Amino acid sequence: MSETTYALRAVGRVESPITDPALAPCQGDEGAPPAWLALNADMAAAMTGLEEGSEVIVLTWLDRASRDVVQVHPRGDESRPLQGVFSTRSPDRPNPIGLHTVLITSIEGTRIAVRNLEAIDGTPVLDIKPVLGAVSQR
Amino acid sequence: MSETTYALRAVGRVESPITDPALAPCQGDEGAPPAWLALNADMAAAMTGLEEGSEVIVLTWLDRASRDVVQVHPRGDESRPLQGVFSTRSPDRPNPIGLHTVLITSIEGTRIAVRNLEAIDGTPVLDIKPVLGAVSQR
Repeated sequence: MSETTYALRAVGRVESPITDPALAPCQGDEGAPPAWLALNADMAAAMTGLEEGSEVIVLTWLDRASRDVVQVHPRGDESRPLQGVFSTRSPDRPNPIGLHTVLITSIEGTRIAVRNLEAIDGTPVLDIKPVLGAVSQR
Repeated sequence: MSETTYALRAVGRVESPITDPALAPCQGDEGAPPAWLALNADMAAAMTGLEEGSEVIVLTWLDRASRDVVQVHPRGDESRPLQGVFSTRSPDRPNPIGLHTVLITSIEGTRIAVRNLEAIDGTPVLDIKPVLGAVSQR
């Protein structure tokens, strides 16, 4: 079995009032406070075309997650049976990439203010992608 | 600026008749042929709860992408103005993670047959996540 690895690098960091993983909502539409994507200065050109008022997908690196976990109780509810991590959104998984659909509320230089981001303060940002499909076609 | 990197590892590979990047559709619902997610044997426990007939999100590592590109012509159409990669689905981007919404048509051991996957044969698979939201709530 190949042990090849691929190196991710942060393109920025999350700035959020959420500092305690235990207090983070499971999903961004479950009460996440406004937050910032503070991108690195060299990402300015990659940001052209991003617009206030649009929804985007943000990928993050959930650096506090456990990568050895393969089964969890969904939403941490021990009354629910163990389930493979690939059928849950648990942060604990072999490659802990967070997937968040957020609303851009303003853009100031390489700082992007967003709603509905449940990630913890300091979380590395990996990528931003447009939402595709019927809801928000681009 | 931090140069910290994070190491991804493949949990499997795509098996697809698509072998030429130039012939791959831009999006999976634009004529992608049936494909397989051939997961590593040690991922069996992580798969429990995945079901035939359900839609899932697949994350891949687009290993043929260029990571230095920050602006592109959307969909490779040079009549369209250059746009920052964060507002496009170009595979070329700082962290070339592919995001695919696919339909599971069958599961055989750690092999998952899917529709609507536009990735090239051999592409490393990083993660599988349930679709959330109104379309396919879990």
